[in-house]
Amino acid sequence: MTHDAALAALSALLGERLSTGRADLALHGQNETYYPDTPPEAVAYPETTPEVSEIVKICAARGCPVTAYGAASSLEGQHLAIRGGISLDMGRMNRVLAVNAEDMNAVVQPGLTRTALNEELRATGLFFSVDPGADASMGGMAATRASGTTAVRYGTMRENVLALEAVMADGTIVRTGTKARKSSTGYDLTHLLVGSEGTLGIITELTVRLHGIPEAVAAATCRFDTVEDAVNCVILTIQSGLPMARIELLDEMMVKGFNRYADAGLPEKPHLFLEFHGTPAGVAEQMESFRTIAEDFGAEAFATATRPEDRTALWAMRHKAHYASAALGGGKHLWPTDVCVPISHLAEAVVEAQEAAAEMGLTCTIVGHVGDGNFHAGLSIDPTDAGEMARAKAYTDKLAQTALRLGGTVSGEHGIGIGKQAQMAGEHGQALAFMRRIKTAFDPGGILNPGKLLPDDA
Amino acid sequence: MTHDAALAALSALLGERLSTGRADLALHGQNETYYPDTPPEAVAYPETTPEVSEIVKICAARGCPVTAYGAASSLEGQHLAIRGGISLDMGRMNRVLAVNAEDMNAVVQPGLTRTALNEELRATGLFFSVDPGADASMGGMAATRASGTTAVRYGTMRENVLALEAVMADGTIVRTGTKARKSSTGYDLTHLLVGSEGTLGIITELTVRLHGIPEAVAAATCRFDTVEDAVNCVILTIQSGLPMARIELLDEMMVKGFNRYADAGLPEKPHLFLEFHGTPAGVAEQMESFRTIAEDFGAEAFATATRPEDRTALWAMRHKAHYASAALGGGKHLWPTDVCVPISHLAEAVVEAQEAAAEMGLTCTIVGHVGDGNFHAGLSIDPTDAGEMARAKAYTDKLAQTALRLGGTVSGEHGIGIGKQAQMAGEHGQALAFMRRIKTAFDPGGILNPGKLLPDDA
Ligand SMILES: Cc1cc2nc3c(=O)[nH]c(=O)nc-3n(C[C@H](O)[C@H](O)[C@H](O)COP(=O)(O)OP(=O)(O)OC[C@H]3O[C@@H](n4cnc5c(N)ncnc54)[C@H](O)[C@@H]3O)c2cc1C
Ligand SMILES: Cc1cc2nc3c(=O)[nH]c(=O)nc-3n(C[C@H](O)[C@H](O)[C@H](O)COP(=O)(O)OP(=O)(O)OC[C@H]3O[C@@H](n4cnc5c(N)ncnc54)[C@H](O)[C@@H]3O)c2cc1C
Repeated sequence: MTHDAALAALSALLGERLSTGRADLALHGQNETYYPDTPPEAVAYPETTPEVSEIVKICAARGCPVTAYGAASSLEGQHLAIRGGISLDMGRMNRVLAVNAEDMNAVVQPGLTRTALNEELRATGLFFSVDPGADASMGGMAATRASGTTAVRYGTMRENVLALEAVMADGTIVRTGTKARKSSTGYDLTHLLVGSEGTLGIITELTVRLHGIPEAVAAATCRFDTVEDAVNCVILTIQSGLPMARIELLDEMMVKGFNRYADAGLPEKPHLFLEFHGTPAGVAEQMESFRTIAEDFGAEAFATATRPEDRTALWAMRHKAHYASAALGGGKHLWPTDVCVPISHLAEAVVEAQEAAAEMGLTCTIVGHVGDGNFHAGLSIDPTDAGEMARAKAYTDKLAQTALRLGGTVSGEHGIGIGKQAQMAGEHGQALAFMRRIKTAFDPGGILNPGKLLPDDA
Repeated sequence: MTHDAALAALSALLGERLSTGRADLALHGQNETYYPDTPPEAVAYPETTPEVSEIVKICAARGCPVTAYGAASSLEGQHLAIRGGISLDMGRMNRVLAVNAEDMNAVVQPGLTRTALNEELRATGLFFSVDPGADASMGGMAATRASGTTAVRYGTMRENVLALEAVMADGTIVRTGTKARKSSTGYDLTHLLVGSEGTLGIITELTVRLHGIPEAVAAATCRFDTVEDAVNCVILTIQSGLPMARIELLDEMMVKGFNRYADAGLPEKPHLFLEFHGTPAGVAEQMESFRTIAEDFGAEAFATATRPEDRTALWAMRHKAHYASAALGGGKHLWPTDVCVPISHLAEAVVEAQEAAAEMGLTCTIVGHVGDGNFHAGLSIDPTDAGEMARAKAYTDKLAQTALRLGGTVSGEHGIGIGKQAQMAGEHGQALAFMRRIKTAFDPGGILNPGKLLPDDA
């Protein structure tokens, strides 16, 4: 089904800012993982909230799907317009509207990227903490409830979004939350929109928390003989209450990937990459406490990086995990999947993840925000090899089941999108019906990102 | 309207655990503030989740209101069965089901009080942080999104509830969230239920975060010449990133109340009560940093309390603010109201709150969790004095308007209940319609705590 009537009306509204150019459609149909290219029928480039509202009204009246598009870095196909209609590219709404340094928050438009925000904050002594590696948009990050390396200390988008403005499926513009740090006044629509993957409303403005840049920052790395030792060190570190700013696991395969992709020159053993934030004395104290714990688990080669450029290099490398994993497959695609478990079960989950990959004959890296109990498995796959794709699918299903068995969740941060709908019933049971009720109540016509997050009714 | 058919069926199900004894009804119709006594038609005492489900099904089939009852400490009349039906007393579901020390969480029943939970946690080195002063139930605290003195450091119920089990309006038992610390799998029903004041579901189990008891704890007090000095000291302290565990303001009237009610013997000037958590070195460092800031604002009589018994005495006194405020009125009732503003506007809000009380001829104390920008005004009122009641109402409305004007919320922690429904449209605008859609989608018959939180449709 095409949506010509809607496109005609949108074109009248937006002029050139409704694009049906082939390159543009192709670009908006791409993704960073294994989903087939899925170009939308058109791409709309709104510049203001009222314009978003008009666009949504036009689409609602004509049954035309609207799929918001941020930076297209989501990993479960969330931004693909799989039921046609328009890709609503938020990229032109990318301004910082206010930095309230005194209240440690910023008001931003959804198309702003997190690095652009931090660039603007430079002079303030404050930073925006959520760091999913990719240079995602603020709207996309809110919509996927993104997380990343610093969530262990500063929280995910769930903790860092204070308030939103959004356009709902009927075009109504709503504001949720206030600039106060807490409130007890009614249903928490902010948290309902965060993580809703563009299926309940289009986020047009965000008020986010900022944090003070710590006086002292130090990074460190160390390696272990086994992944269990590394993970058990993490568990004890978290249980000791050490306020780790970052604590990332890289298994031996991941290290191999970095060696290959980035000439890292690291011994191919499990590593932890760490960061400590605080006062100079506090950081020294934390680092010493961590070292004592780590040595109990046989950590070797504890190396610190206090110079900013060394730290930047370390995290820049870490953020290339996606591409370094792909490199291992020698030009194959990457199928990344993530789960999150209670930290006490983390070693078990990681070991199962490694063993399952070996059993299934899959090349797999493990890298994770392990302080949260969250890790990613990166499978090298060839999308044209049906057998390998089937094994990869079986692997991700199995890993999801492991996470549920251990009391965890089928995704700590990448979300559901297209890829994990089949896991929703297993994780949510009867609660799924109540998610559906919300979707129906908010978007009765089903125009907002249809086909995502909620599995089709059986 | 009475609900005899429902009561008969409930009586058949529960036997003696459906009570219609006068004393019982009277008890469940009381409240800690100025609302008239409102006894329910009956009180049900469930002991298990399936029993809650059966009760709700019976009531749903017969249009009988169900108002959950925790410890009845809510301050906006939330637990009163104002449309009749039953009070669902969760008090017998008060067990700790599991303490997962390794994962720093506990699974508890809703009728458990926070002090009982902390009692059970004694041997573990962990504690549950949310502390609203009153010995509230865990279910009630989740339902009001409670907060309190330690929220500035450890968060409110919003941050500390990981997962819930709840009985929905049709009797369905749902589980929301998992034991993992974060998740990106669908709509955040946990946060939707937290703060919903029993209008969307009955909470039958909670998984809550625990925190490690800090190695070192120190409390302190100091006083200032003016409330602006005290508040400006708080603002700078928070902006400096000092990880305050507690930072409470008491204005001169509140200190007078403590002197009168608890023989506190304090000079009648604005005070801050503080607590610092960390390592011994960290606490010393924090305390020194705070002291430097405070002295810039003319703080006097900086006194520390490191002995546990002294700290306990300090916070026990603080937690009597409600009764000490009432004492000022010489046996009058207390009308407490709370607002929360961005911290940069806190001094302005507090001063306006004091001035408005003076102008309106009301006796008023101010006490607050000021690190969050949250404070309470406590008005001494005589419920039989219509003029005074009208002035108190005008005062709370004015304070709410002040909070909104300053970018804040009409309640930081007490909630909406009966008392603040008229403020909902002002705070939420168009978003209110989406809250209503949720209510209708979840509870089409309107049996869960009817008449609360959402204003009646105009
Ligand atoms: C190399 C790499 C590493 C990554 N690492 C992490 C990681 O560590 N942690 C993590 O959490 N994620 C990670 N991701 C995934 C990705 O970065 C996040 O999912 C991110 O939040 C997506 O943001 P985006 O702007 O790219 O959104 P898009 O991909 O464009 O869209 C994502 C979803 O949000 C919706 N959306 C976008 N904008 C809006 C809006 N304004 N209103 C409503 N809905 C909107 C879209 O419709 C879609 O459903 C990684 C991705 C890559 C490529
Ligand atoms: C002296 C005093 C000081 C206070 N200080 C603070 C403070 O600092 N911070 C703060 O946040 N609050 C404070 N309060 C208010 C009060 O303690 C909180 O609102 C508390 O969360 C109420 O819990 P409760 O168990 O008493 O609930 P109740 O009053 O019994 O019920 C509150 C609401 O929750 C619902 N409810 C109860 N149990 C459930 C359940 N299992 N499932 C679903 N809904 C349920 C009820 O229906 C009702 O709507 C104070 C109160 C007093 C008396």
